Amino acid sequence: MTAFDAIGLDADDTLWENESFFRLTEAEFCALLGDHADPQMIADRLDRTERANLARYGYGIKGFMLSMVQTAIELTDGRIEGHRIARILDLGQEMLAHPVTLLPGVEAALDALAGRRLILVTKGDLMDQERKIAASGLADRFDAVEILADKTPEAYARVLFSHGLRPEGFAMAGNSMRSDVIPVIELGGTGIFIPHGMTWAHEHADAPDSPRLHELTSMAALPDLLARLEA
Amino acid sequence: MTAFDAIGLDADDTLWENESFFRLTEAEFCALLGDHADPQMIADRLDRTERANLARYGYGIKGFMLSMVQTAIELTDGRIEGHRIARILDLGQEMLAHPVTLLPGVEAALDALAGRRLILVTKGDLMDQERKIAASGLADRFDAVEILADKTPEAYARVLFSHGLRPEGFAMAGNSMRSDVIPVIELGGTGIFIPHGMTWAHEHADAPDSPRLHELTSMAALPDLLARLEA
Repeated sequence: MTAFDAIGLDADDTLWENESFFRLTEAEFCALLGDHADPQMIADRLDRTERANLARYGYGIKGFMLSMVQTAIELTDGRIEGHRIARILDLGQEMLAHPVTLLPGVEAALDALAGRRLILVTKGDLMDQERKIAASGLADRFDAVEILADKTPEAYARVLFSHGLRPEGFAMAGNSMRSDVIPVIELGGTGIFIPHGMTWAHEHADAPDSPRLHELTSMAALPDLLARLEA
Repeated sequence: MTAFDAIGLDADDTLWENESFFRLTEAEFCALLGDHADPQMIADRLDRTERANLARYGYGIKGFMLSMVQTAIELTDGRIEGHRIARILDLGQEMLAHPVTLLPGVEAALDALAGRRLILVTKGDLMDQERKIAASGLADRFDAVEILADKTPEAYARVLFSHGLRPEGFAMAGNSMRSDVIPVIELGGTGIFIPHGMTWAHEHADAPDSPRLHELTSMAALPDLLARLEA
């Protein structure tokens, strides 16, 4: 039996759609460069550039925009025209304004979790994450919001420390095995994996062999799982 | 007499150099576009673009890079060559790797402030601010680090609430009248203005008429000022 003092919830692709906007933008980016290379080759180059830039840019749309610009220049040996770069910037700005669409079952799950201490734990651009939290209408459901540069065990440890929480009393739920589940289990907490059909390959990782790992098909099942673990 | 429960310190251009890197990069950007317009006109256009993009990009180097790319395209009516855009990206990446140079008197002031509850309060890109805090070697001097999307009264109120602080017991010191001083005085706290020779015009604002506003020429004078206010 475990008693949870607080529940952490990921945001992108756990509470609302996110990766689908990246994939739609990527498809437009590939079409924009269609006379220079085939779409799969462009997508692969972009993915490599994104990963190489992660340590400098971190996660989020601004870094993605800069990586698209860089990829376009490299793929065309610098022959890309200014108006196409302008189109790339427009694509990014559209992403930064996209509506926030809650995933099915999220609101009902949050209703059922009311009374628990809930912490939203996300990563990416500060301004963009704050915009989405406000636009989601869910801000009031959370006791705290933590926007991290990266979801490492150290970053989670800082969050737990600042809230006076022990890892054993903390469960984190999200769609990324790498960012939401593994680091929390590593600290001694509970990791609840709720896969989303569309997740950046960078977020994939092998499931750890731990009795504190649980998997759900949807946020809707989270309140029951927590109750069962506490029974 | 005031008793301070915690002291907030700004980072960029309060603890270490920052704006000078932006101005050096801006000068290189103007030189790069030198055959299209004169430097002052380019700098003005870039400044306008930066301000217009603030609500979407927030503060920080990534947004600055995107604004430079956009300005270059607009100023050249899209005729900018790919290799010059690549050079703009390089300039930004150099900024993201620049060394952290502490301002004079900062370390001695922090020594003298040891024992006080110190909170570093900064704004900008998460990843870049975390890099600079780590590189500064000053992380251990602070009880907490708060990286905000913007330094509004609401954002300061959230910080104070999360640390269980009353505004009357909080003093914030920094080089921006707009971001470090005014919002904290507005909440009922103490604002300590430590101007830096080089500050983005966007951060300028008229000094409020308040007995809780103080001005210093350097961080070195901060410990004495606090002691005097508490005497």
